[in-house]
Order: sequence, then C-alpha cells, then structure tokens
Amino acid sequence: MKIARFTSGGSDPQFGIVDDEDLVVIAGDPMFQGFETTGERVPLAEAKLLAPVIPRSKIVGMGLNYPGIEAVLPPGSKTEPVIFLKPNTSVIGPNDVIQLPPVPGRIIHEGELAIVIGSVAKRVPAEDADQVIFGYTIANDVTALDRMIEDGQWARGKGYDTFCPIGPFIETEIDPRGVPIRTVVDGEERSSGHTRDLVLSIPEIVEMVSDVWTLLPGDVILTGSSNGDLEIRPGQRVEVEIGTIGRLVNTTRARA
Amino acid sequence: MKIARFTSGGSDPQFGIVDDEDLVVIAGDPMFQGFETTGERVPLAEAKLLAPVIPRSKIVGMGLNYPGIEAVLPPGSKTEPVIFLKPNTSVIGPNDVIQLPPVPGRIIHEGELAIVIGSVAKRVPAEDADQVIFGYTIANDVTALDRMIEDGQWARGKGYDTFCPIGPFIETEIDPRGVPIRTVVDGEERSSGHTRDLVLSIPEIVEMVSDVWTLLPGDVILTGSSNGDLEIRPGQRVEVEIGTIGRLVNTTRARA
Repeated sequence: MKIARFTSGGSDPQFGIVDDEDLVVIAGDPMFQGFETTGERVPLAEAKLLAPVIPRSKIVGMGLNYPGIEAVLPPGSKTEPVIFLKPNTSVIGPNDVIQLPPVPGRIIHEGELAIVIGSVAKRVPAEDADQVIFGYTIANDVTALDRMIEDGQWARGKGYDTFCPIGPFIETEIDPRGVPIRTVVDGEERSSGHTRDLVLSIPEIVEMVSDVWTLLPGDVILTGSSNGDLEIRPGQRVEVEIGTIGRLVNTTRARA
Repeated sequence: MKIARFTSGGSDPQFGIVDDEDLVVIAGDPMFQGFETTGERVPLAEAKLLAPVIPRSKIVGMGLNYPGIEAVLPPGSKTEPVIFLKPNTSVIGPNDVIQLPPVPGRIIHEGELAIVIGSVAKRVPAEDADQVIFGYTIANDVTALDRMIEDGQWARGKGYDTFCPIGPFIETEIDPRGVPIRTVVDGEERSSGHTRDLVLSIPEIVEMVSDVWTLLPGDVILTGSSNGDLEIRPGQRVEVEIGTIGRLVNTTRARA
C-alpha cells in the first residue's frame, strides 16, 4: 500500500492511499489512527504531495553503509558504518526546491532508501525489526561535502534547511532486501545501487540504532548511499528512483 | 523570572513561575501563550519538576567552545568550535536518573549553560540574537567519550537515552555574559568555568547556528563545557550549578 500526505485546493494536510490515478482519503494519520478511509477520492493530479512524514524526534542517517562510498572522504578516513543525525527542519517534500547555501566546495546528492518507524522502539533485536517498521520511502541525503569534511562532524554539512527531501510515498508492503536505487540529474544517471549491497542490513540497522536511541513513531532512518557522480549545482533537476516506491523529484537553486 | 514545568498530585504537566517557596501556575505554555497565571499556587516542595522544555525539533550542541576542552580529544584533533545534534529522546528532567549504557571506556559529564529559543529564527545576526531567545537553563551534555572518539562522529556517543538532563528552571532575565558554571560529583567540585571564557559568545552562537538550521521555538542550544575531572560512574550524584539559574541534580546508574 502506498500512502501519501498531501493538500488539495487549500486543504489542511491529509493522508491518502494511492489507488491508480487517485488518492483515497484516510480519516486520520494512519501511523496513529489506522487506515480507515472517508470514501472521498482526490485525483493525484490535483494533489500537492508533501513529505509523507515529518519526524517529530529524529532523522537518523547511516554513513558508509555501501561499499565504495568512503571514496568521497579523505584517504585514511574511517570505513565502518557510522550513525549521524539530521534535524527535522531539513525536511522538504516532493517537487520542493533544494536550496544550496553559499558554502565552500561541493554539495552532493545521496539517494537513499528510508525506513519509517511506526512504533516506540527501544533495543529491538534484528529479528523483530519488522514489527517497528511502518514502511519505506525515498530520501535524498543532501550534503555540503567539503564543509562536512572540514568540520569533521557531519551535523552542519548534512543539516541545512531543505537538505532532506522525502517522498513521494510511504510503501508499507515492499520487501526492502531487493530494491534497486538510481539517481538521475537533468536526465543523466549519476549513481546506481541495490539494497542487497548494504553493509548493515535493514534489520541490523534497526538493532544498532534502537540500542542507542529510543525510536519514536515517525522517526526516519536513511540507510546510506552508494558512490557515483554526486555533485549538484543550482538549476538542476534531481531524481531518486527506488524500485516500486516511486521517484522523488526535486529541483535546486542557490540560496538567496 | 524563573519558569518551571512540573506535575503535582498526578496532574498533567503544567508551567509555573517560581515565587519564593511556591510555583504560581501559568495558564498555558508561556513560550506560546504568555505568562498569564491562574491564581493557583503549588508549593515547590510538592511539585515534581520536569525538563522545563522538550525540544520539538533540535538540541544543538557546541563542541570545543571553551579553551582547554580539546584536551579530552586525541592529539591532533580539531580545536575550533563545532556544532552537533543530540536527539530529544535524550532529554530527562531534574532528579531523573542518567542511565550509563555498557559502552567501552569513559562516560563524562559536561555542565553547560543552555539557550532556549523562543521564536522561529533563521539567519539571525548576532546583534538581534536576544530577540529570539526565550531564556536560559542548565544542561548536562553527558557523553560516552571513548565511543565518540572511536566513532569519529559524535551523534552516537552524545545521543543515548538520558544523556541530556535539562533544568530545573528557565531563567528569562539573566545576563548570560557573566555567569559561573560549576559541576560537583558526590559533593566534590569537578570542573568550574565562566561564560566570559566562551570562544563563540552567545550572540555569535545564535548567528552561526541559525545560518545552518531554522531554529524553532523550544529548540535548545548547549553552549559548551570547560575541562576538568569529568568521568562519571554508576551510583553517583552529579550537580551542575549555574549562577542564579539554580542547580541541576541527577543521579547515575548502570543501564539494565
């Protein structure tokens, strides 16, 4: 099932289930109130899609979780998977604009499968991970790479406003172990990966992260990206496509 | 004015103004609804004090913002101030228990002056910082030091549940430029500092942080700690005392 969060005709944000060319409106927030529908249908073409979840507590990122991605860092950097945080103020939705701040050096895209947590999760063993996962979506872990390398700490370089596009849908039924991920800039493929290459698998990620932090419903975990030609510049169109979840499209511009 | 968040006799959390030995109950959340009081008074001795704010978006930490604190890091580490994030799931209140997880190496306390943001703040120049600050409180930036050094990234080592005690009050009228900070473990002074020694001043911190992240009401910025004998162990009592704001007291135990 694909869940969207959207507005239409100036409505407050609401949730809907994607059904062919329509959204079937859900009575509340499905994460907390279930999937009961109101019967109303809104054509997808008339909906403005929003980020399908706004994390109330945490966006957790996995760094160095695909083989080869460490090549973006200076020689001698650590190569084991590492966890970091992005703030919820970095979240934007599908078709929103990624604003590139005036930082020294490169800004890159990182197209990633994102786990959406559905219930309170504290020290969850890998074999129980499915029980706390609400679904999966697509994220772009936008990163001011040279600023991040200069800082040593990743929080600033990965945390600017608009640096976490999420969407377009939450897919509640996908098998995340066999999903291709592709990023495309201005129509040209820039990187491609596959979740079978994850260093820490999705259940292992949930086990590791929930040992450190109590995860809350709506928390999002970005599972990492593979290497490629990742740099983005103002005036581009960035697409992250993941298997059957869909395609997250954003444009870029220089921050005013 | 000193603001507390508290429960008494099983009530929902509410806010109050400290008046001698009493709390004068405020009608709503003063950050959003002002300081109108209900007339009710609750003796401080009968109130269970809570963290005076739960950040809805971010807890930002300043690393290396006092001279000498870089000595806790390996030789050759960066020495300029750096920003990092702690998740809101790490917040506990006064008198709550800091749970020490089974990590390799040292866990340390860091007693710090904390800025509580009161309004949406985006690229605020230093000279306007006062306009977005609601007040100041006390925080303990508890850190699994050796885990953090091993990770390189600080998010995990600084982010465990219970690693961000905050309180007991928010002081809305203090001049933060001249405030002594002292931490005491089991009655023995372990570190002492003064806000006049901050590398980046409070207005400069607000300018730097609000350039990266839009700050939201309730966001908290920990301004950094000075060096000392910082290690804590299970079964201790840790106090952070800051000028006229008060004293934040927590005990420690090993995580089950």
